[in-house]
Amino acid sequence: MKATAPAAPVLPIRGRLRPLGLGDVRITGGYWAERQSVNAVASLAHIEHWLEREGWIRNFDLVATGGDLAAERRGREFSDSEIYKFLEALAWEIGRSDDEALESRFRAIVARVAAAQASDGYLNTKFGRPGQAPRWSDLEWGHEIYCIGHLLQAGVARARTRPGADDGLLEVARRAADNICDTFGPEGIDGICGHPVIETALVELGRVTEDDRYLAQAALFVDRRGHGRLSDVEYGREYFQDEMPVRQATVLRGHAVRANYLAAGAVDVAVELKDASLLDAIRNQWTNAVRRRTYVTGGQGSRHQDEAFGPDWVLPPDRAYSETCAGIGSVMLAWRLLLADGDPRYADLIERTLFNVVSTSPAADGRSFFYANTLHRRELGAVPDADRPSLRAAASLRAPWFEVSCCPTNVARTLASLTAYVATVDDEGLQLHQYVPGPVEHSRADGRRLCVTVETDYPRDGEIRVRVDSDDETPWALSLRVPGWAAEGATLTVDGQPRPVAPGVVTERRTWRRGDEVVLSLPLAPRFTYPDPRIDAVRGCVAVERGPVVFALESVDVPGVENVEALRVDTSQPPRLVDGRVTVRGWHVHPHENDWPYRTDLSEATPVRGEQLAEVPLVEYHAWANRGPSTMRVWLAAQ
Amino acid sequence: MKATAPAAPVLPIRGRLRPLGLGDVRITGGYWAERQSVNAVASLAHIEHWLEREGWIRNFDLVATGGDLAAERRGREFSDSEIYKFLEALAWEIGRSDDEALESRFRAIVARVAAAQASDGYLNTKFGRPGQAPRWSDLEWGHEIYCIGHLLQAGVARARTRPGADDGLLEVARRAADNICDTFGPEGIDGICGHPVIETALVELGRVTEDDRYLAQAALFVDRRGHGRLSDVEYGREYFQDEMPVRQATVLRGHAVRANYLAAGAVDVAVELKDASLLDAIRNQWTNAVRRRTYVTGGQGSRHQDEAFGPDWVLPPDRAYSETCAGIGSVMLAWRLLLADGDPRYADLIERTLFNVVSTSPAADGRSFFYANTLHRRELGAVPDADRPSLRAAASLRAPWFEVSCCPTNVARTLASLTAYVATVDDEGLQLHQYVPGPVEHSRADGRRLCVTVETDYPRDGEIRVRVDSDDETPWALSLRVPGWAAEGATLTVDGQPRPVAPGVVTERRTWRRGDEVVLSLPLAPRFTYPDPRIDAVRGCVAVERGPVVFALESVDVPGVENVEALRVDTSQPPRLVDGRVTVRGWHVHPHENDWPYRTDLSEATPVRGEQLAEVPLVEYHAWANRGPSTMRVWLAAQ
Repeated sequence: MKATAPAAPVLPIRGRLRPLGLGDVRITGGYWAERQSVNAVASLAHIEHWLEREGWIRNFDLVATGGDLAAERRGREFSDSEIYKFLEALAWEIGRSDDEALESRFRAIVARVAAAQASDGYLNTKFGRPGQAPRWSDLEWGHEIYCIGHLLQAGVARARTRPGADDGLLEVARRAADNICDTFGPEGIDGICGHPVIETALVELGRVTEDDRYLAQAALFVDRRGHGRLSDVEYGREYFQDEMPVRQATVLRGHAVRANYLAAGAVDVAVELKDASLLDAIRNQWTNAVRRRTYVTGGQGSRHQDEAFGPDWVLPPDRAYSETCAGIGSVMLAWRLLLADGDPRYADLIERTLFNVVSTSPAADGRSFFYANTLHRRELGAVPDADRPSLRAAASLRAPWFEVSCCPTNVARTLASLTAYVATVDDEGLQLHQYVPGPVEHSRADGRRLCVTVETDYPRDGEIRVRVDSDDETPWALSLRVPGWAAEGATLTVDGQPRPVAPGVVTERRTWRRGDEVVLSLPLAPRFTYPDPRIDAVRGCVAVERGPVVFALESVDVPGVENVEALRVDTSQPPRLVDGRVTVRGWHVHPHENDWPYRTDLSEATPVRGEQLAEVPLVEYHAWANRGPSTMRVWLAAQ
Repeated sequence: MKATAPAAPVLPIRGRLRPLGLGDVRITGGYWAERQSVNAVASLAHIEHWLEREGWIRNFDLVATGGDLAAERRGREFSDSEIYKFLEALAWEIGRSDDEALESRFRAIVARVAAAQASDGYLNTKFGRPGQAPRWSDLEWGHEIYCIGHLLQAGVARARTRPGADDGLLEVARRAADNICDTFGPEGIDGICGHPVIETALVELGRVTEDDRYLAQAALFVDRRGHGRLSDVEYGREYFQDEMPVRQATVLRGHAVRANYLAAGAVDVAVELKDASLLDAIRNQWTNAVRRRTYVTGGQGSRHQDEAFGPDWVLPPDRAYSETCAGIGSVMLAWRLLLADGDPRYADLIERTLFNVVSTSPAADGRSFFYANTLHRRELGAVPDADRPSLRAAASLRAPWFEVSCCPTNVARTLASLTAYVATVDDEGLQLHQYVPGPVEHSRADGRRLCVTVETDYPRDGEIRVRVDSDDETPWALSLRVPGWAAEGATLTVDGQPRPVAPGVVTERRTWRRGDEVVLSLPLAPRFTYPDPRIDAVRGCVAVERGPVVFALESVDVPGVENVEALRVDTSQPPRLVDGRVTVRGWHVHPHENDWPYRTDLSEATPVRGEQLAEVPLVEYHAWANRGPSTMRVWLAAQ
């Protein structure tokens, strides 16, 4: 392992951009510092509490002590993966904050996991012991390989943040990975896992260990997929992307988490193997999924039934699934494509998804989570049971835990490693993709240092001040992303001279001196957003956005308006900031009550306009449902 | 058993209206005669072929011969019910047409079913034998009681159409019902079936046999429901209406077939027991379900995941489930309410559902079926396998058979008994609810005869000519339904004098002479229909209807328009009949292609108007998808 490798989740061997690590970027305040702090202080302890309480860690103890797993094991077939995602979150958080208490909790759990590993490297609490189904007997639904994928990611996180540490997690991961390669290699079982993630995990483990066997196995898994090796299911093999080879698909489809994880792994494989056609295929799939199958929040997945992408343009706000984990998978994929291509569109989607999906899942206190992120709630939700895991999509408010509890641990590992997504470098210089206050410092292999400090209260304020903190006689390029939504009004000020800049990447290449400053100013007036006419479900509606943040109408903000259906927005007036809140104008409307909801007479199908509403306050979508049961709309009817 | 009982599926002890039987009404031509003929000639043989081929009848032989059911039984847990529904269809068809070949096929299958009945009356091929789960061990999903419900309905159909026949089906049904009562009576298992239907079946068997035990058991099942006796499931106990007592519910909810079947059974119980509050509850549930949870086709169920009603106003056309069997359940429920109350709204919904759901399921040739009836298909569907059962909702065109194949047999029994829904009598006279050509003859208990003949080509033509065929010195009332959609322009001509009539029931009470004639003239100009503004999914869209028939735009009718999304309708011009086809005017539109489907600039979100389209032909919704793969919209964008 290279001692100098950045502490980052993804370290491609090549690509347009190279990532920085957790040691290179710090978030010193503002929106994301608050989120990271709540994650570290509240969410991690909350998650550990539930993992213990539900017995999912104890499952490992049962294996280690020869307990009766058939009778006593608890949790679904993928519960092991939650422990691994939690370990990954701890590893990143320890890397970020050096917290000794977290370190000892981390080591204690690693020891329990390690004790459960079989002598041949196999590690899973659900299969293979007396009374359980045999190993690898249910590749469609068993999630055995999937769980190992998350174990590897935890091992990678640990190796990158604490190289050479003696806790043993990396060794556990290597032995488990070797067992996968032994079992599913070219001479082994000709199978794949129903839930991808092993692909990206194996590539990264190969990067950490410099062992090519893992990359080869990942490439094999990618190529094996799409030939119907998995049994058919009610919603078709598309569900686990096994209906068509990944190189042939033209859009992300099927289960939205599986689709994004697989595509992320395929990018990893393509980059390592210089497989341009594979990378082209994924780039095309991403482009089409973002064009036609993505919610305005960045959320993906419009079907509850199979947690899946629907067909093009089927994006109903009220049945939006927009699973938190699909959002995280989308960030993983877009980040890999950004590193490969450098195209700012990927960073645009990452920003949108972080603010409006990943950030929407946890409650303000970090102790409850949305699994699905609807864009429209018509009925007051019931308050989830605080003492019992909720059913995933049934939870109408954030719930403390789920029977399928993939999202809380996924949010935790993402927030703990968030600084990895802020900036990159290339041979020319430094690129800022996300705007957070704090230092960004890069020491090049040639000894030169590129250091800046960002000062901003973005996205509450549009001014992003980038101060250079290093002297260098050689010119280098400082690149800033101008978000796609900033179509008009963005300016860059260099040497006190502002100039308009268009969405994309703006680059200043010069000899930088300590104290030099550039200021990117982004237009943060709230705005109406209109949907593509092919999205039938929101015809005649508008959304309101400010910067990268999507807003919503929530019933608790509108006393007197019983539910959010009774508003019609006046789009002739742009939304306004009033006392720090985004507001719209409109009317209260009253529909006609009819015994049959379809009318020949248009006037009977048109609601009656009532009271004029001057300033209706909206809420940041990510902050909704923090004030008790409510109804909510992102897409506001204008007609 | 009363020898004079009409051959009808439902014979309430009291109520506003009394049904006529299959012997009292004949359909001599037109739309429904064609459907009945295809059903008799093609569908029944098609169904029997698949029931044999899939081994679902053979399961009974395995029981009778002591075969190894655990190893050899085929089909899902409810496959027995398909044989029973097929027997019911045969019984009605034999009653209608007296077909000897059908009679011998009927008897052959009854003999195989009878041979499988246990000595204590228990009858099910899925439970209770060596290697199978024990009897009644899975009330949530086992469908044991459900299957018996359909057996009872078959027995009732046979008893009503061939009273005293020696085939033995009624006896098999009685013994099975006795077994249910013995097992689940007040002293027995305190349970209910996950899928209602036994309730309505037991009441009708009680009416046939005049044994009050069956009614009492039905009432017990109705009252037991809604107290959480069934285990919770992912979508909640609402799925099988077990989350709330039926008397407390205010709208139909959960699985749409279950909801309608249960409500139908509750009406039966309420009518028999003079339970006004129970009847009120169901009437209210029906009213609210029709107001807020029903598609313009009459279809019900907007969720694929659980085949369920969604919340109020969630009626997406592209994810419409609108299961064929839910439509049939809705007809069953509305018919019972019509008999109880006499309100023509119920007959309105029956008409709409028959023309646009029940009639949409079978292909023109009667040999393939829709399971779900979407209102919008964006992509060309794949052609289902002709030699393999399709997955229910996955079939994009009509499929010959399904793994869950409830719909074909349900359609068959409904079409075979369709004449039962045409007319009723009360002490005042005769009521016509549906308009079909043919004689309606009623012999009263007091010896008086009320006979009419209807001449009409409805719904192709709006003129309905009712000629009296009997002489009676005593005045009686002839009542005709004016459909709710005929808000303007309907006239009734009596003695050559036309007068305007409004939607509802128009009654002519007089001394009728043979040859007297009244003519109801219904306005059949095609019309635009506008949705309630609370149905977000079709905002800015219109449907086109003509009489009770809903129309659709199908891509095969519009050469040059690649898919049906590219049309914008001009609503300033009403739809027109051109050469016998309903047409609309509009424009071809071209959306802007964008990398991100949400735009700040309204003009970029507005499609460009292209070619003006003068006469775009539409197709009757029930006739779509009979000409190969196509795309289709019921709701046409007007904006």
